[in-house]
Amino acid sequence: MALIEPRTLKGFRDYLPEQAIPREALIEKARGIFRSYGFLPIDTPALEYEEILTGKGGEESDKQLYRFEDSGGRKVALRFDLTVPLARFIAQHSSELGLPFKRYHIATVWRGENTQRGRYREFMQCDFDTIGTESMVADVETILVIHDLLRSIGIERFTIRINDRKYLTTLLNSYEFTEKQVEVLRMLDKLDKIGEDGVVAGIVGLGFKDFRAQELIRALSALELGGHFTAVDDIRDRLQGVRNSVLAAGVPAERVVLDHSIARGLDYYTGIVFETRLEGLPSIGSVCSGGRYDNLAQLYTKERLPGVGASLGLDRLLAAMEELQLLPKTSATAPVFLAYFDPNHTSDYLRLAADLRASGIGVELYPEPKKLGAQLKYADRRGFRFALVLGEDEWKSGTCQLKDLASATTRTLPVRGPDGKPSPELLAALR
Amino acid sequence: MALIEPRTLKGFRDYLPEQAIPREALIEKARGIFRSYGFLPIDTPALEYEEILTGKGGEESDKQLYRFEDSGGRKVALRFDLTVPLARFIAQHSSELGLPFKRYHIATVWRGENTQRGRYREFMQCDFDTIGTESMVADVETILVIHDLLRSIGIERFTIRINDRKYLTTLLNSYEFTEKQVEVLRMLDKLDKIGEDGVVAGIVGLGFKDFRAQELIRALSALELGGHFTAVDDIRDRLQGVRNSVLAAGVPAERVVLDHSIARGLDYYTGIVFETRLEGLPSIGSVCSGGRYDNLAQLYTKERLPGVGASLGLDRLLAAMEELQLLPKTSATAPVFLAYFDPNHTSDYLRLAADLRASGIGVELYPEPKKLGAQLKYADRRGFRFALVLGEDEWKSGTCQLKDLASATTRTLPVRGPDGKPSPELLAALR
Repeated sequence: MALIEPRTLKGFRDYLPEQAIPREALIEKARGIFRSYGFLPIDTPALEYEEILTGKGGEESDKQLYRFEDSGGRKVALRFDLTVPLARFIAQHSSELGLPFKRYHIATVWRGENTQRGRYREFMQCDFDTIGTESMVADVETILVIHDLLRSIGIERFTIRINDRKYLTTLLNSYEFTEKQVEVLRMLDKLDKIGEDGVVAGIVGLGFKDFRAQELIRALSALELGGHFTAVDDIRDRLQGVRNSVLAAGVPAERVVLDHSIARGLDYYTGIVFETRLEGLPSIGSVCSGGRYDNLAQLYTKERLPGVGASLGLDRLLAAMEELQLLPKTSATAPVFLAYFDPNHTSDYLRLAADLRASGIGVELYPEPKKLGAQLKYADRRGFRFALVLGEDEWKSGTCQLKDLASATTRTLPVRGPDGKPSPELLAALR
Repeated sequence: MALIEPRTLKGFRDYLPEQAIPREALIEKARGIFRSYGFLPIDTPALEYEEILTGKGGEESDKQLYRFEDSGGRKVALRFDLTVPLARFIAQHSSELGLPFKRYHIATVWRGENTQRGRYREFMQCDFDTIGTESMVADVETILVIHDLLRSIGIERFTIRINDRKYLTTLLNSYEFTEKQVEVLRMLDKLDKIGEDGVVAGIVGLGFKDFRAQELIRALSALELGGHFTAVDDIRDRLQGVRNSVLAAGVPAERVVLDHSIARGLDYYTGIVFETRLEGLPSIGSVCSGGRYDNLAQLYTKERLPGVGASLGLDRLLAAMEELQLLPKTSATAPVFLAYFDPNHTSDYLRLAADLRASGIGVELYPEPKKLGAQLKYADRRGFRFALVLGEDEWKSGTCQLKDLASATTRTLPVRGPDGKPSPELLAALR
C-alpha cells in the first residue's frame, strides 16, 4: 500500500514538546493570575452558526472565516476570535451567570489569513474580561492583571500604555473631523510606526486638507505635553485617576504611560484602551492589548452589557521570553531520569520511581534495559536535571549513583532510610 | 435591527464556570500525573488534510467526520480523535523526537454523532502514550498512571481490568474461529452487558454453530478460573508479570483484575488492553481505556512504531466525581471576596487586594460601591469562602470584618502588621 505523506496544512503547525512545554507553563501562569483576581473560566464551541459569528452581514473578517455546511445542512463556521462567542455566551446565559461577570477564556481560533505575512491560520487566544460594570475599578484591575502576569514570567522592562477612545473622538469633534473618524483614528494609531509626516500624509489621503491634519497632530502633541482643552479634561481626569489607582496598588510609575497615540484598530472600543510594549523588543509589538466597550452583545440581546478586557498575545510573549532567555532549556517534564538495566530488579525500579513520585519528585524510568551510555545519552538529550543509576551492586548495597547532568558530577547516596522510604539524603539532593 | 438568536449548534455546548472549573482542575491533575512520569505535552492542528484522517479509504468513522473544502480548494477535516494525528505527528517528526517518546495530548475532537444517544459532537480527549518500545515496563507504567490519577482526584473504589488481545485471538485460533475474529471479539467484549446467552446468540448470529459458541464461552470461563492451555500460557505469563509489577509498585491487589472478557472494540490493539471501572457506578462505563499496538503509523511511514497508551474519559470522570460528591461546591476561583463601598478609599481597597495576592491569597474586589447586602449576596452566590468588609470606620481603626461565609461568623482583625503588610492574624485566618 502506498504511504500517505505525513504533513500539516499550510498555516498550521504541530507543537513539539519544546514548544508545548513553555506554552503550557505560560498558560498556567496566566490562569493563576486570572484566578487570583476572581476571573472564572468558560469555554464555548469551536463551531458556531455562521450568522452568530458574522453578525448576519459581516465584512472584512468574513474572507478569513472557515465556513461550511454541516451534514445537517446548517451553515457553520469556526470561531475567529473569543470576543464574538463571549457576546453570544453572555446574551444566552446572562441570567444564570449574574453580573458583574469576570471571565477568562483560553482557546484556539482559526483565520484563513495570508500566510505570506508569517501568520498562522490556527492560534490560541487568551482573553479576560469584566462584563456588566462601568466602574473604573475594573479598568484598573485589567491593567494590574497585565502587570502581574508579565512580572510572574520574569519580564521587568515594559510599559503599559493607556489612552481613552473618547479622548481622541472628542479631540476629533473639536477639530471638526466629524467624518471618517474610524479611519482617522487608525491613522493616529500608526504614529509610532510611520511618524508625524506619515500620519499627516495618511489623513490627507482620506480627503482632508493638509493644514487641518497638521493642526490635529499639533493638538495631539500639545495634549500630551499637558495642554488643557475643556472638552477633554473630564476624560483625562478619569484616565489619570485610573493611572493613579494602578500606581497606588503598587505598580512602579514608569510602567504606566498615558499615550494619546494609542487608538486600537477595533471599532468596538469606546473608553479606555491599552497596549503593552516590551522595552528593547519593539518589533514584537504589543503583547497584551484591550479596552473598554459600551455594549458587548447588542447583536444578540437588548440588555446593555458594558465591560472591559484584554487579550494576551501568547505567541508574542513566548517569542519575547525566548529573546530574553526566560524559557527553560529543557524538554523534560520530570526532573529525574531513572536508568534501567537490571531486569531482575524491574519491580525495585518501579517501586523506587513510585516512592519518589509519592514524595513529589517526578521520575521517568527508561523502559528498556539498554546500555547505560545509550540511556544517559537519551537523558541528556531530553534535558533531565538528574540521572539515578542502580545496578546489581547498588541494589545489593542499598546505594545509588546520582548524576547531576548539568555539572556532570556523581554522588553515591543511600537509596532508602530506616523507614524504608527514599532516604532523606536522596530527597534533599533531588529537591 | 433584528436581534440574532444566541444559540449553540445541536450537539455542542457552552461550559459555564461551574462546569469549566472542575474540568480545568481535573485536567491539571492529569497533567501533573503525566509529567511526574516524564510524559511530554504535544499539540497538533484541529484541521488536517482529509486523507490524513481517513487513511484514504476510510469507513465507519467517515460519516461522522466534519469535512469541507477550504478557500484554497483543499479537502480538509476536523480531527475525530487524537490517535490518528499522533500517528501522523510521529511519522513526520520521529527523527527530531527520538524514541522512546512519551507524550500526552489534551485537546478537542469533533464527531458528527447521533445526538439522540446523548452524545456530544465536540468533546475533549486526554490521551497518553509511550511510543517506540515493546517493553512490559511501559505497559506497567500506563496502568500506574491510571491508578495515580484516580487516587489523586479522590476515587478509591475502582478496578483496572486487564487482558491481552493475543490471549483471545490465540483462544479463537485454537477453537478454529479463524473467520470473523474481529466480530467475535466484539461479541465477547459484551459479556458483561448482555451475559453468556446474549454472547452465544450473537456469535450464532455471525454464522457459527451454537455448540461451538458454547464451547468457546466455556473455554473462556475455564481460562478465567485458571485452566491451562499451552498455546496461551506465555501470553498469560506476560499479563501476570505486568500485574505483579503493578502490585510491586504499590497498587493494592484488588484494584488490578485479569478479565478475559475485555477486548476493546478498536482493531488496532494487538497486545495488552485495559479498562477502568468504578465500583458502584457501572452505568458510567470505563473511565480510562487503552492498550498496546504493534504499529502505530503504518499509513504514513515504513518505520515500525509499537507503543502502548490510554485515554482518560474526562466527561465520564467528571460525571463520576459529581455522583461521588468529589466536586467542590463553588464557582469561585479566588477564596476571598473584598467588598467595596467607600469610594474615598478606592486606592486602599486596591492596595489591600494587591498585598493579599502578593501573599498568595486570591482576592476579588467588587467593582462598584453598591450596598453591602447586594455585594454579600453576590459573594454568597459565587461561593467565596470569605468576605472582607472595610468601611470608613474600619479604615480609620485599621481593622477589618472577616466573614466566614460557610459558617456565617464574623471576626474583627487588624488589617496590617507593624511592617505595613497584611497582618499575620489576617493571613492566618485566610489560609
